[in-house]
Amino acid sequence: MNVRSVNFWARKGETMDKDARALAIAKKLHALENTSRAWDLKLEGAGEGWARCSMIIRDDMLNGLGTAHGGVIFALADTAFAWTCNSHNVRTFAQNASISFLSPGKAGEKLTAEAREETRGERTGVYIVRVTGEDGRVVAIFQGLARTAGGAVIEEDENG
Amino acid sequence: MNVRSVNFWARKGETMDKDARALAIAKKLHALENTSRAWDLKLEGAGEGWARCSMIIRDDMLNGLGTAHGGVIFALADTAFAWTCNSHNVRTFAQNASISFLSPGKAGEKLTAEAREETRGERTGVYIVRVTGEDGRVVAIFQGLARTAGGAVIEEDENG
Amino acid sequence: MNVRSVNFWARKGETMDKDARALAIAKKLHALENTSRAWDLKLEGAGEGWARCSMIIRDDMLNGLGTAHGGVIFALADTAFAWTCNSHNVRTFAQNASISFLSPGKAGEKLTAEAREETRGERTGVYIVRVTGEDGRVVAIFQGLARTAGGAVIEEDENG
Amino acid sequence: MNVRSVNFWARKGETMDKDARALAIAKKLHALENTSRAWDLKLEGAGEGWARCSMIIRDDMLNGLGTAHGGVIFALADTAFAWTCNSHNVRTFAQNASISFLSPGKAGEKLTAEAREETRGERTGVYIVRVTGEDGRVVAIFQGLARTAGGAVIEEDENG
Repeated sequence: MNVRSVNFWARKGETMDKDARALAIAKKLHALENTSRAWDLKLEGAGEGWARCSMIIRDDMLNGLGTAHGGVIFALADTAFAWTCNSHNVRTFAQNASISFLSPGKAGEKLTAEAREETRGERTGVYIVRVTGEDGRVVAIFQGLARTAGGAVIEEDENG
Repeated sequence: MNVRSVNFWARKGETMDKDARALAIAKKLHALENTSRAWDLKLEGAGEGWARCSMIIRDDMLNGLGTAHGGVIFALADTAFAWTCNSHNVRTFAQNASISFLSPGKAGEKLTAEAREETRGERTGVYIVRVTGEDGRVVAIFQGLARTAGGAVIEEDENG
Repeated sequence: MNVRSVNFWARKGETMDKDARALAIAKKLHALENTSRAWDLKLEGAGEGWARCSMIIRDDMLNGLGTAHGGVIFALADTAFAWTCNSHNVRTFAQNASISFLSPGKAGEKLTAEAREETRGERTGVYIVRVTGEDGRVVAIFQGLARTAGGAVIEEDENG
Repeated sequence: MNVRSVNFWARKGETMDKDARALAIAKKLHALENTSRAWDLKLEGAGEGWARCSMIIRDDMLNGLGTAHGGVIFALADTAFAWTCNSHNVRTFAQNASISFLSPGKAGEKLTAEAREETRGERTGVYIVRVTGEDGRVVAIFQGLARTAGGAVIEEDENG
């Protein structure tokens, strides 16, 4: 998304503005994370309170059974979680996460993680991430607990 | 550990035998996991009901804050968990994991994960993994729930 | 809900039928659980893949701070989870649960737990439960992992 | 434990002092918790970084299968966790807990929960609680994440 398009939507009012800011935050975090490049992790979309990213399971991401390593599935979910819990432009970090593994991720398969904010209080929030395979089956469900650290993720005029 | 040394210990009786078998299982899994090579993950030791591995946090493992990505810390813990829950030579897989993040992992730092079996029943078991930094501080605590799938991980004469 | 009303809805076709069956299951479990009587736990509603129950925080449910004991909040969520994971009329039990505590439950306050099925596979399913206070604030978020044991919860003609 | 015995041990030096203080804290919390009386929950022992309590599974604690309700098992574990994370005399509260259910608790059976501090940092700590049946089998494993709120649980001269 280029600067022009952000500004366009931002003019439409507060809600759009917040979604545009959230997308700008996700883009900034994506750019800052070395892991995103190392894993060819793609930002698929983001708004206030949600984010979606994807990754193709490469050979170097396989466990001894030839399926996606649990740590790789977690890492994808954790990335969507991080973008989402930072989407209000308050620096926030993960405190706890619980993941249920439901179906293996296959070699060569594109996995998608979609995070949504389940609730958010003054200092803490809870986020649910759903990781799905190409056929739509659920690979994992992730619940993350985040805590704000304070400070902004982006300058407010960075999102234009 | 070479074949000779395994046989030496194995002759000492059942307990040694089981620990030697557990080490052979960890070595086999380590060799089969593409992720271990991709992440330069080292097997530091293993026995029945425990395993230890380590990894140096490379630049390509950093998040946007310049510290170890949560997915990388989880992946290290998850690997020690997998070796430990398979250490009885019954194929076992992860069903659920919960991780508490306590301190960031630093760039260039060697992180070590040590898993221990907390309990094991007929079909399920619970494992605790402690991830520590070079200075001994606790980076994360991980609790894993595993379920047996049946079948052996190694042929019983593979461990010699 | 009386038998007549169940039959009425059941005639409307499969979807209604499944929701009526789910409600009959929740009612049966509610009646069988001694805890429901002990805690004055109310069934507020149920359908296939969801259930809602409530409880007033009595004095004998308070911790040392004078707020709802964490175990009481968990128990309410766990009950909604049990009804929901059994709502397909396949006997199912809890394997793991993770709960984030976000706000205390107050003395005398009515807490409501609403469970929804996040995903369900052949043997396992994941459920999210949201516990809220009278003012709508979120008291806790609960993620449950369930596993089917096989067998029916109710006779199919029990739901009429 | 009476006042005299606490003072006796307290004179022996700092370690004993801290364990005596931890026991005094557990006793105070036990006395303040209405739930302890409602559930006939017993304090079995406590020291700095650990606590043990027990409860007999009464008829009013049974679920629809005639076994201990998951919420009751959680509540027992959560109580041992609360005493342990407060054992350093800094007010601390639960943020997150994950529990794996391994074996049912039986009607009339005494269940025991033993909590131990796995790690403790400046603001957060992680605690593992093991719930066992009368025959020693593991009923559940619980992992709790606690956060300090500040302030003391007891006056330092309250432990004598």
